[in-house]
Amino acid sequence: MAEINQQQISDSDTEYALDRKNVARILFAVDRADRDALVQLMEPLHAADIADLLEQINGADRAALVRLYGQDFDGDILSELDETIRESVISILHPEVLAEAVRDLETDDVVDLLEDLDEPQHEAILDALEDSDRAAVEQSMTYPEFSAGRLMQREVVMAPDHWNVGETIDFLRNAESLPEQFYHVVLVDPRMRPLGNVTLGRLMSSGRATLLASILEESFQTIPVTQDEGDVAYAFNQYHLISAPVVDENDRLVGVITIDDAMAVLDEENEEDILRLAGVDSESRLSDRVADTIKRRLPWLAVNLLTAVLASLVIAQFEAAIGQLVALAVLMPIVASMGGNAGTQSLTVAVRALATKDLTGANVWRVIRREILVGFVNGVVFAVIMGAVGVFWFGSPGLGAVIAAAMVINLVVAGLSGIAVPLVMEKAGVDPALASGTFVTTVTDVVGFFAFLGLATIVLL
Amino acid sequence: MAEINQQQISDSDTEYALDRKNVARILFAVDRADRDALVQLMEPLHAADIADLLEQINGADRAALVRLYGQDFDGDILSELDETIRESVISILHPEVLAEAVRDLETDDVVDLLEDLDEPQHEAILDALEDSDRAAVEQSMTYPEFSAGRLMQREVVMAPDHWNVGETIDFLRNAESLPEQFYHVVLVDPRMRPLGNVTLGRLMSSGRATLLASILEESFQTIPVTQDEGDVAYAFNQYHLISAPVVDENDRLVGVITIDDAMAVLDEENEEDILRLAGVDSESRLSDRVADTIKRRLPWLAVNLLTAVLASLVIAQFEAAIGQLVALAVLMPIVASMGGNAGTQSLTVAVRALATKDLTGANVWRVIRREILVGFVNGVVFAVIMGAVGVFWFGSPGLGAVIAAAMVINLVVAGLSGIAVPLVMEKAGVDPALASGTFVTTVTDVVGFFAFLGLATIVLL
Repeated sequence: MAEINQQQISDSDTEYALDRKNVARILFAVDRADRDALVQLMEPLHAADIADLLEQINGADRAALVRLYGQDFDGDILSELDETIRESVISILHPEVLAEAVRDLETDDVVDLLEDLDEPQHEAILDALEDSDRAAVEQSMTYPEFSAGRLMQREVVMAPDHWNVGETIDFLRNAESLPEQFYHVVLVDPRMRPLGNVTLGRLMSSGRATLLASILEESFQTIPVTQDEGDVAYAFNQYHLISAPVVDENDRLVGVITIDDAMAVLDEENEEDILRLAGVDSESRLSDRVADTIKRRLPWLAVNLLTAVLASLVIAQFEAAIGQLVALAVLMPIVASMGGNAGTQSLTVAVRALATKDLTGANVWRVIRREILVGFVNGVVFAVIMGAVGVFWFGSPGLGAVIAAAMVINLVVAGLSGIAVPLVMEKAGVDPALASGTFVTTVTDVVGFFAFLGLATIVLL
Repeated sequence: MAEINQQQISDSDTEYALDRKNVARILFAVDRADRDALVQLMEPLHAADIADLLEQINGADRAALVRLYGQDFDGDILSELDETIRESVISILHPEVLAEAVRDLETDDVVDLLEDLDEPQHEAILDALEDSDRAAVEQSMTYPEFSAGRLMQREVVMAPDHWNVGETIDFLRNAESLPEQFYHVVLVDPRMRPLGNVTLGRLMSSGRATLLASILEESFQTIPVTQDEGDVAYAFNQYHLISAPVVDENDRLVGVITIDDAMAVLDEENEEDILRLAGVDSESRLSDRVADTIKRRLPWLAVNLLTAVLASLVIAQFEAAIGQLVALAVLMPIVASMGGNAGTQSLTVAVRALATKDLTGANVWRVIRREILVGFVNGVVFAVIMGAVGVFWFGSPGLGAVIAAAMVINLVVAGLSGIAVPLVMEKAGVDPALASGTFVTTVTDVVGFFAFLGLATIVLL
């Protein structure tokens, strides 16, 4: 068992984080080009932790480490690496080491590896595979990216529907090779259509004469081979699946997906939502270089600049009013800011609910009504507070009334647009996490400034 | 196999969403109090889908449905329900139906159920259990909330370290009862300390004389019983665990955690981060009532109001300057908005990296330097653009220079605070997703307004 938890940035989160001292020791060994020490230090580490290490050290150290580690470099490390780092590591690896590393991988991991590589590296990896594996990998690559077909393993342990427990156990015990991890025997009809799953535990605890068909798991789901991997992950989480057979358009068994892969996808999908909601490219990683980071953030800031300028154009319409009453300039960001925040709240709950399929035809109108009502009530609460601020700070009941009215208007608009924008995006087939935030804050900025400055012009000037 | 996918809000996300027509049929049956039709319509649905249905319909329909469904109400539905809805459903259920439903659940699911219930309901459920189950549940409840102890199943399939494959298979085949789902046999020493896992697949494909100790899985992790469930979920995802033994402070086996529970926790932790980053209470659900929704959002808006007022106080210092040059009021929100966006970008990447343990002592300084550099470069890009806007829109090179300088300052500050704030929060033991956003935008608002208006006062007036 690898020892990996020690002191780290904070006490509450030390578990499983890389140990700073261990990293220092490893880098010291790399520095001295002491291969024996390096191998000894790396040996207890899990491939996933080695990948994290490679992501966290700088480029020069990484290259030196990979070269020194040489033939001990395991294929699993490649699978675990972030794509950005993966490419550079592959280009450093000696072709023979790379070939060896790739040959050890399961075909679904090779597919995952290939997806993010450029053509020349692509070929190098395919050439390293045995013919049968290469055919399997190339077959998988014919399925659309991010589909169940790319995610599945092609080796499936199955049994015909007339078998009993004894026959199945004998078959398993005599099989030449079984997948490294499998949890079910899939029962299939003569046309290779899956009928159900038998857990290995159930198999072991049932009498030899028991028909497999009589001990199928109660809950059973098949996955269409073209299904989006996000939906696959959802199904695993929703129905507590451990493994599920993948079927082609004729319902015939073509592979199996296991929960560990589904869990990784679920985590990636959530990460994508988190980053997109913040206006960051969903491929952003901490290990990105400065140039990549700038490239990933600049476009979103540019969009934000356009919307900010739009808001400024609204303000510019009221230059005369502001010139007469500078208090308007002092207070106007409050209305816009509160609207932006309230809109982001509704938006985020809506985006999350769409992702978890909790926002459907059955409740959409009730949710919209609720958001408007919540916006109204919160608007009234803060209208009272800001009205008081207007009176006491600026000694103007009129100003208090104007900011109060603008607050109610903007928070209702925020609630409505927070739910409506992601719904429209979803309907249009665009990821609602992607650009909803910008739309919603544009609306709340424009409405906030317009309502506040417009009302002020009418009421106060 | 339940048929659940049909037409829904959008085409791209129809998979697994509740079918609107089916919901209508179910509600129609409830309306007519037609129990047979209801049972027939509900029968093919998975407990998780029934739970979603109950969450999505309104309170009156929900109560009527639960009453009509009566004795067919399954314990699994309770497990799948969101906490807010769960309480109201339990209070509707006939005590005998509740008792029956609870008795069918595994002890870890009962523990999960109890965590969110008030005292009277608590007792009702404990009373429904058999004595041995009740003892197990009460034992689990002694572990801290959100710990591995609460998450684990107490039934473990284990074997002493001297057993061979034949002995183990015979033991399994003769066992009175085995857990419903298990994937490994845990090898333990005479003091009950886990030594490793043997997969059932490996067990079935090895000769009877083979020692278990010789076919252990390569990668092996034990989970301390007090470990935070978020760290447990991380370990499962990082090390591709399927099940892992849980040990007490003396390293003795006390239970086992399986990946489906870890996956649910990982999803919840991500949801928490998404909601908290948006300034929404992490318990927020679409099924919350209006009053709850207001309660969950109002405090965050109140905090935002305070920070917005703080920013206004900064602006108020420059009332005279704005009175002289109203263009300042038009342009100042742009500087603040760009800073807020850039800060949120850095912040989100940092929060995510902390959650995935990718931001550690090994790279923290490099990441901080990178964020500052990225902020500077993006600042310069938008400084050039805004400088040009200042010149062409307002015909003032001075104004262009001022907004350009303020932009660079604010985007550097945004990058720095975006990374520094979550790091400090983490160090202080506070969830960095929780309040970092407010801190960061406060900093960028204050710095943005101060830099722009201050420079304008010095340069232009």
